[in-house]
Amino acid sequence: MEFSAKNVADFLKGQIEGDPNVKVSNVSPIESGKQGTLSFLANPKYAQHIYSTGSSIVLVNKDFVAEGEIKATLIRVDDAYKAFAMLLDLYQSAIQQKSGISEKASISKTAKIGDNCYIGEFAVIGDNAIIGNNVKIYPQVYIGDNVSVAENTILYPGVKVYMGCNIGKNCIIHASTVIGSDGFGFAPTGESYKKIPQIGNVIIEDDVEIGSNCSVDRATMGSTIIRKGAKLDNLIQVAHNVEIGENTVMAAQCGIAGSTKLGGNCIVGGQVGFAGHLVIADNVKIGAQSGLGNNVKEIGTTLLGSPAIEYKKAARSIAVFKNLPELAARINQLERELTELKKKV
Amino acid sequence: MEFSAKNVADFLKGQIEGDPNVKVSNVSPIESGKQGTLSFLANPKYAQHIYSTGSSIVLVNKDFVAEGEIKATLIRVDDAYKAFAMLLDLYQSAIQQKSGISEKASISKTAKIGDNCYIGEFAVIGDNAIIGNNVKIYPQVYIGDNVSVAENTILYPGVKVYMGCNIGKNCIIHASTVIGSDGFGFAPTGESYKKIPQIGNVIIEDDVEIGSNCSVDRATMGSTIIRKGAKLDNLIQVAHNVEIGENTVMAAQCGIAGSTKLGGNCIVGGQVGFAGHLVIADNVKIGAQSGLGNNVKEIGTTLLGSPAIEYKKAARSIAVFKNLPELAARINQLERELTELKKKV
Amino acid sequence: MEFSAKNVADFLKGQIEGDPNVKVSNVSPIESGKQGTLSFLANPKYAQHIYSTGSSIVLVNKDFVAEGEIKATLIRVDDAYKAFAMLLDLYQSAIQQKSGISEKASISKTAKIGDNCYIGEFAVIGDNAIIGNNVKIYPQVYIGDNVSVAENTILYPGVKVYMGCNIGKNCIIHASTVIGSDGFGFAPTGESYKKIPQIGNVIIEDDVEIGSNCSVDRATMGSTIIRKGAKLDNLIQVAHNVEIGENTVMAAQCGIAGSTKLGGNCIVGGQVGFAGHLVIADNVKIGAQSGLGNNVKEIGTTLLGSPAIEYKKAARSIAVFKNLPELAARINQLERELTELKKKV
Repeated sequence: MEFSAKNVADFLKGQIEGDPNVKVSNVSPIESGKQGTLSFLANPKYAQHIYSTGSSIVLVNKDFVAEGEIKATLIRVDDAYKAFAMLLDLYQSAIQQKSGISEKASISKTAKIGDNCYIGEFAVIGDNAIIGNNVKIYPQVYIGDNVSVAENTILYPGVKVYMGCNIGKNCIIHASTVIGSDGFGFAPTGESYKKIPQIGNVIIEDDVEIGSNCSVDRATMGSTIIRKGAKLDNLIQVAHNVEIGENTVMAAQCGIAGSTKLGGNCIVGGQVGFAGHLVIADNVKIGAQSGLGNNVKEIGTTLLGSPAIEYKKAARSIAVFKNLPELAARINQLERELTELKKKV
Repeated sequence: MEFSAKNVADFLKGQIEGDPNVKVSNVSPIESGKQGTLSFLANPKYAQHIYSTGSSIVLVNKDFVAEGEIKATLIRVDDAYKAFAMLLDLYQSAIQQKSGISEKASISKTAKIGDNCYIGEFAVIGDNAIIGNNVKIYPQVYIGDNVSVAENTILYPGVKVYMGCNIGKNCIIHASTVIGSDGFGFAPTGESYKKIPQIGNVIIEDDVEIGSNCSVDRATMGSTIIRKGAKLDNLIQVAHNVEIGENTVMAAQCGIAGSTKLGGNCIVGGQVGFAGHLVIADNVKIGAQSGLGNNVKEIGTTLLGSPAIEYKKAARSIAVFKNLPELAARINQLERELTELKKKV
Repeated sequence: MEFSAKNVADFLKGQIEGDPNVKVSNVSPIESGKQGTLSFLANPKYAQHIYSTGSSIVLVNKDFVAEGEIKATLIRVDDAYKAFAMLLDLYQSAIQQKSGISEKASISKTAKIGDNCYIGEFAVIGDNAIIGNNVKIYPQVYIGDNVSVAENTILYPGVKVYMGCNIGKNCIIHASTVIGSDGFGFAPTGESYKKIPQIGNVIIEDDVEIGSNCSVDRATMGSTIIRKGAKLDNLIQVAHNVEIGENTVMAAQCGIAGSTKLGGNCIVGGQVGFAGHLVIADNVKIGAQSGLGNNVKEIGTTLLGSPAIEYKKAARSIAVFKNLPELAARINQLERELTELKKKV
């Protein structure tokens, strides 16, 4: 698809400065813009790039004042970032028009499929599964028996959903993520272990996004729950009976052990680990690579370290840690001097 | 499936207190029990919940003494936890009756398929593969050439087994786990790297369970081996030529580098890393997020930290770490006081 | 396949000592050699094993001098390790002759498929995809619309490549790895988050190998880039707009946050984390489990720790850390002694 500066300006109700006929077919960051692409300038930190960018069109705020020659065609709008996001949304919706039910999918006769769904090649939909309207199921997805997937949700290629799990509306689950594998539960029998059947399920509420290659285990009994609006990055481990609160955001490679409950609106950095059976309050922020071994009762705390402690305290300990050899040397010196002094007294 | 209290009591040889006709179709934890579900009470810590639970039936030990009114129908048994586990097993076996060989699977003419197998849609079974009796291969599984899978083993959707690997009896491998990908071996050639062919395989012995999204690499030569009864959680990395001992249990997101040998009956917390070429003794316990850089010779050691040291020693160092800024301040103070004192002497 | 010592010696232009008719069908490490296998001895550290090995044939350097009785047939060559690598290459190429396009694959009419490709069962090739000559696409791989895969590249079972990504020549991508899932980008809207469309792509240059179960996210705009010759192990997270330099090698379970640029020829240990928006110089070495929170400007630095500092400095701090309780005790003692001393002065 190609658009002229005029097309874009008309759509955004913006004002053109430069050639209204210049055409773009893609977008690019302003600092690495190429001919035929559209960029935006919102953050003044990037203003320098507008004089050298190769982009054909740049969206700028109405009040932008040029301090040099600009080759690109400018389109002035109220809010360059919002205008750009609108274009992205438009672009995204234009390219993502997968539709229709492939004859190469395997769909149980007892499954209920909503209107306007996309079901790709070699997808499997199990018995009594319920698929809502406008759901997009990419190729090679597996939907077990008695699974429900509510309207507008997208499951990318290779997602596996075990039997009995429920996925809400407007969710996005990326490729090869597994929902509902068995919780890790074994009873020691002396020398070996006996598997504890995992007969619960996973409930994913509305507006959740989960990245690729994540594992969300089913509950031993009851449900593992990811609440409305939570966002999980890639390669995350969610153990049996965990609950993740509303709008909590978690970066890649975090792991949450069994039965831990995370509050809402938490922000968790990458590679963080949570021990089992913890309760973490709302609005807690946790730095990357931290390890949580205790409950966090205070709302809004910021934590860091393994084991995690209050952020500022952790930062101060880390600063001293870097100078530990010097500290040890000073203790040696103190001991020597004290010994000398004792002789004199 | 629905069962009456009478059905359950007959099966468990228990005694009913309450309505023998009340029906259940699922189980639930006693603290979040709902009508139509069955719970159990074994741990006295949870005894309080029996007076408020919504569960329709609760299994209790024979000697349980009620201290208030209970709405649920009770079934008294010798051991409430064991009785409950029996019901779970029964429930699990009842719902997991996948069987038959899908016409949509692709099975090599030279593969040998045992009796009573389940092979799901879009599974691929390669040349000369040997699949034992009662094996369940879920949809979209890939079994490479010359792979063997022994009886009663379950491979969940999307498991990939590269050529030449051997999987024992009674194993369970969860969705999207990869068995037999190439070991990470490259010979530096000055500026770049040359791949070292990885021509070994992976051997998984009997009674092993491996979670979802794990990677178990094939050996460069010889075999990567996971011994009988070992249990691996999700997202675990097992490098080429690693050996994991019998009945060793490992939590999610651990990583073991090439050629390391773990002993039997070890217990490893989540996100632990092992360097390559280590030998770890039997019965070793390792805390979450630890990093093992050295051999562990003593059987039964407990370790913690990165790098890992003896657990109690690590715990003491961590305790001091949290107060490092205060310790540094005390050293400053000592230096000042000593300087003062010197002047006086 | 079986080969006699004579076959092998002829191929390698080596000299036989022992039975020229002894046959081998596999290779093994010399220390665990079995009858019917071939081993090599290059490293003098392993020389002891040649007297007890069960291997039928051992490749040795021309100048090897036996110091005891050897049962195996020897083949003397200029460089035993290189000769062995040649045999491995031969063996590998012999067994990896997958070819042909399965009728059970789903290939868009608008896709272009090169000569001599292998496309396995239940693979999906999207619209306008371009597949080069000699590409091997294993079963259950997903190639989205407008993806290109250049010649000689191998995609193992279950690899998922989202639309618009480009993969170079001679690459190897292992099972269940995901290329091009959405970057983790959300704009806070007060109480919840709005998804930022991720419309960039992933570019993987030539000669790259990526392990199993990795996630490489597409760029928000522009491209996430893995440069020529880079090697990634399993379960690695590469976020949106990351760049990994030429011939950089990265062990399993590393995670790189958004927009970070790694230099060329870096060597990164396992489970290392990189914060976002960093720039890491060329030839940097990073120890396992480190956490990078700052730019690394100096070429060739070696780093360790979380947060990572210069390697030797980190090693010294870690050494002191292990003795922190003793250090604290010495400070206590100093304080007591100083107090005593003050009384006397």
